[in-house]
Parts: sequence; structure tokens; C-alpha cells
Amino acid sequence: MKILIPNTIDLHLHSDAETVVYDVEAPIPDEHRDAEVLVVWHNSASRLHEAAHTLPDLRLVQVLASGADVALGAGFADGLPICSGRSLHDGPVAEHTLALILSTIRRLDVLHDAQQHHRWDEEFIRAQAAPATRHLHTLAGSKVTIWGFGSIAVRLSPLLGLLGAEVRGIARSAGIRSGVEVHADEDVAGILADTDVLVSLLPATGATTGLFDARVFGMLKPGAVFVNVGRGATVDEDALRAALESGALRAAAIDVTKEEPLPRESPLWDAPNLVITPHVAGNRPVGASELIDENLRRLVSGETLVNRVR
Amino acid sequence: MKILIPNTIDLHLHSDAETVVYDVEAPIPDEHRDAEVLVVWHNSASRLHEAAHTLPDLRLVQVLASGADVALGAGFADGLPICSGRSLHDGPVAEHTLALILSTIRRLDVLHDAQQHHRWDEEFIRAQAAPATRHLHTLAGSKVTIWGFGSIAVRLSPLLGLLGAEVRGIARSAGIRSGVEVHADEDVAGILADTDVLVSLLPATGATTGLFDARVFGMLKPGAVFVNVGRGATVDEDALRAALESGALRAAAIDVTKEEPLPRESPLWDAPNLVITPHVAGNRPVGASELIDENLRRLVSGETLVNRVR
Repeated sequence: MKILIPNTIDLHLHSDAETVVYDVEAPIPDEHRDAEVLVVWHNSASRLHEAAHTLPDLRLVQVLASGADVALGAGFADGLPICSGRSLHDGPVAEHTLALILSTIRRLDVLHDAQQHHRWDEEFIRAQAAPATRHLHTLAGSKVTIWGFGSIAVRLSPLLGLLGAEVRGIARSAGIRSGVEVHADEDVAGILADTDVLVSLLPATGATTGLFDARVFGMLKPGAVFVNVGRGATVDEDALRAALESGALRAAAIDVTKEEPLPRESPLWDAPNLVITPHVAGNRPVGASELIDENLRRLVSGETLVNRVR
Repeated sequence: MKILIPNTIDLHLHSDAETVVYDVEAPIPDEHRDAEVLVVWHNSASRLHEAAHTLPDLRLVQVLASGADVALGAGFADGLPICSGRSLHDGPVAEHTLALILSTIRRLDVLHDAQQHHRWDEEFIRAQAAPATRHLHTLAGSKVTIWGFGSIAVRLSPLLGLLGAEVRGIARSAGIRSGVEVHADEDVAGILADTDVLVSLLPATGATTGLFDARVFGMLKPGAVFVNVGRGATVDEDALRAALESGALRAAAIDVTKEEPLPRESPLWDAPNLVITPHVAGNRPVGASELIDENLRRLVSGETLVNRVR
């Protein structure tokens, strides 16, 4: 069995399959069109679309990204299993999400601007210490709602809890998960009205496209903070910008945008109180080799594949 | 008993003592020179110096800041007890310290600069994902050393632990504290050589002045990160700048400087890979009223005062 490994990551497979490293920015060489497994990491949509139509013997597409949406849209043959790298990113994504939340609450962006102007920001110091607004500058006592309560949220919640936040989740079904009260998504109105920090970890699906729109931002407690480390397609970016401009959102941080890279002329870059990072939350799969080895073993033995999304 | 309360904070005392709110930016009015307790929060050094020489009946100076150094240097009568607000800041300071560590590791400063130029930072994305440097972009697996292992470190350590860091402490005496291995400060050489992130929470004392100098930065693992949320006086700022310029330190974040506000002409503002925040880590005492009430009670009953530093 021949496995195509992208040149964007170091992998150390134990499988005795034949591994061939391919360049994600070039067409798959003719002599490797007999590959049965394609590993995907940092491939462009166009090269992946090309691969989908030139590898007739494929039996598995193993994506290492957390979301497999690019592969799902690349036109691979119906019935060809596609697996995501979901579990590989829980730790890194939780870490980046916490970094964005803390930066937004502690306004490191505002203080960075002040630093660039050699300004010890006395105005910020007074605002932060003012009795009436003190609660805006700390997670302690704040209510954080995580929409999309899966394995990343399970990593993130105890961190937020240790910082004194009260964490709630929103997911397709209600229940207690890892000690956190998770509400069904039809009950969001009451939760949003009582949310200081809304964190999205939602994947891009038909149901989540454009979910964060003017209506949802309007349901939030006025002056709430929004952090998106899920997928850009879930956000109506005009509505996000309008909510920041009106102050309905006090601040926001996003690691993902609808179009990536975000075009230079996008008005999002200059939206007030918005921090943008270039999709780097989960930019390093942890345990990728082990996942591939396991799915190769399962493919051969006919067992259910790990993280299969199609 | 008359208590002078600064106009910089809302306090709700249960004590039946007479409370008088004073303006921290004006001289203490003549009719209140008989006060027996002075509460200090956001006072300037010069006004405090003035107060020290105009309040002959004082029995207690209760500082709400974590460090009482400004009051200690104000010239209050020998033997007059001075108490700090140390315990009031553990949560907020731990939170800000974590924000600075994560910002430095995740390079939110670099990405903020890219955002200002409408640039989706592909160079950063590649560097972060590159197999050889991936460990620089996460706390997972990194070794974090906290110098000054008191109550703030006890709050901070479990957060770092949950993020996958290995935490060690340095303090005056060795031992295990809250599950963390704390080394005596005479054993630092071996610890520093194996440190990825050095965090200082040290107060300003005779022993700590200029402690972080070229020698200490030189003992660190090359390319380590330095975060100072203790006191600015502990750092040789020329040595810090030199270490950043040479790359001996990969990045640093400081919430405190030797002179505060940091003068506009200081070269620190533009030091490479340095984040400066204007002493806002603990800018909101939590439980200040309760501390004052408790120390008033103890003052009257002759018990040992809480947080007494002199």
C-alpha cells in the first residue's frame, strides 16, 4: 500500500506501508497516482481538488486539520472515507483560545498600541481600576459560554474555571459534560442574554453557516466579548463589524475568517476592538503519526476508522 | 478612631470607626490630621511623603497594593506598622501573568503588528508549523520557572500545569509547595539552564534589586522567554534590552519598570520582541474592605496584623 505524505510535516510512521513525500504545492507525480492513502496538511483547495481527480485507487483521505471541510469540498469520489485530525488539536486550540480570551479581557491589543506610541496608558489604568467597570477587566466572576461543546471545550473549561469564570456550554443536546452545564441550542436566548464572553468552537456545517449574525449578537448581554476559534463560515462578518462599531460587542478576537487568507482590502482588519490571528490556533497536530498508523491498521483490518467524517 | 479612605476605590467597611474619604491628589485637610489609620491606593509618592509628615496620630498605614514599597519609602515614623494588600491581588495578578505568558508564547504582539498592516502572516504560519520550531509556540512540554514562589505562584501553577507546562519554583528555601518543586535561590544555575519561560513575581527588596542582570539572562537556556510581573527594580533594564537584541531572550513581557510611568524617551519601548503593560496586573484589590475591617479589629485588640511588612 502506498501512502502520500505531505511535505509540510514531519511524520514517523510505524506502518510498513510504502510512504512517499509529496509537495503540496505541485501536482501529484504520475508515478504516484496509484497511492491508496492521501494525508492532507496545509494543502491548497485547488491542489486538493486536482488530487481528488487524479488518484483513482484512493481508499482513505486522512486530513490532519481539525476540520475536514476543505477535503469534503474537494470532489473526492462518493464513498471514499475522509477522516479529520480533530483530536490532534485539542490542546493547541484550547491554548490559543485562552490566549485570545485573556488578551481581549486584559486588552493587550489596546496596551500594545499605547506601547507603540511610547505611552504609559494612564487612561486605561484609571478605567481598569474604576469601581464601576472593574468587572470588565477580569474573567473572575464572568460568565463564559462555549458554543460547540466538544473535546476542545473539555480542555478549555477547567482553565476558565480556575480563573474564576462560570462556564456554560451550548451544543446540539443538553446535559452535564465534564462537569459543565451544556444547553441545547434551541435554548440559547436566555443563555446569551446572561453571557459576558461568547466563545465559538463550532465547525463549518450547513447548520452553522452564518449562525453568528445580527440576531445572535443582539441577543448577547450588551458589551459582551466574542471569540471565534471555530470556522469563519459560521460568522456574518458584516454583522460582526457592525456589532463592534455600535459597541454591542465590547471586543472580539477571531482566528478564522470566511475567506482565508483574509484579503488585504477587507474592512475587518480595521474593525474597532477586533483582534485577528491568521488561523494559527491548531497549527500543529500533536500525535499525527500515531493517528495515521492507527487508521492504516483499521483500514487493513476493516475496523471503524477514527475521526471519520464521511 | 478616624480612618482616611482614598477616593480611588469604593470600600464598604463594617467597622464602626469614623471614615473620611480623602483626595489622593491633594494635601490631607487640616481637620483630618488626627486620623489614626491611613488607607493607601493609587497615591503618588510625593503626596504620600507629605502625608507621612502631617499625620502625627497614625497607628496604621494600610496599603492596598501588593507591594508596600512606596509607603515604606515615604518617611512614616519608625515603628508605625505598615501592612500591604498582598493577598488581595493573587487572582488578578495570576490572570495577567498568564495573559502575558500566552501572548508571548503565541506571539499575539507579532500578529497584532501584521493585522495593522492588513497582512495575513504567512511567514509566521510557516514558522509556527515548522517541525523544528514548533515547541517554541506552545506551553505544552515547556519548562516554566517561577522566581518568587508565594501565593500568586500557587494560583498560577495549576493553570500552567493544565496547559502542559512543567512548573518549577525558586524561593529563599527549597521544598514542595502546592505540589510544585521549589528550589532554593542558591541552586538557580542548573534550573535556569533548563528553563524555557522564566516568570518573576519577586517583590522589590535590597536582595532583589537588579537581580535580573546580564549574568542571569546569560544563565538561561538560549532563546528563553522572560516575564516580569513582580517589580521593575529587580531588572537591569539595559541587560534586558541587550538580551532581547542579541536573541539570548526570544521574547519578554513586563508589567513593571524601574521608573513608572516609563518615560516616553526610554529605549525599552522599542526593544525587539518586548511587550510592556503599564503596571495593571493587580490593579483591582479583591476583598479590600474585608482586609481593612480585619486589621482594624486586630489593631484595637492588639493582635498581629495581617500582611504586616514593617
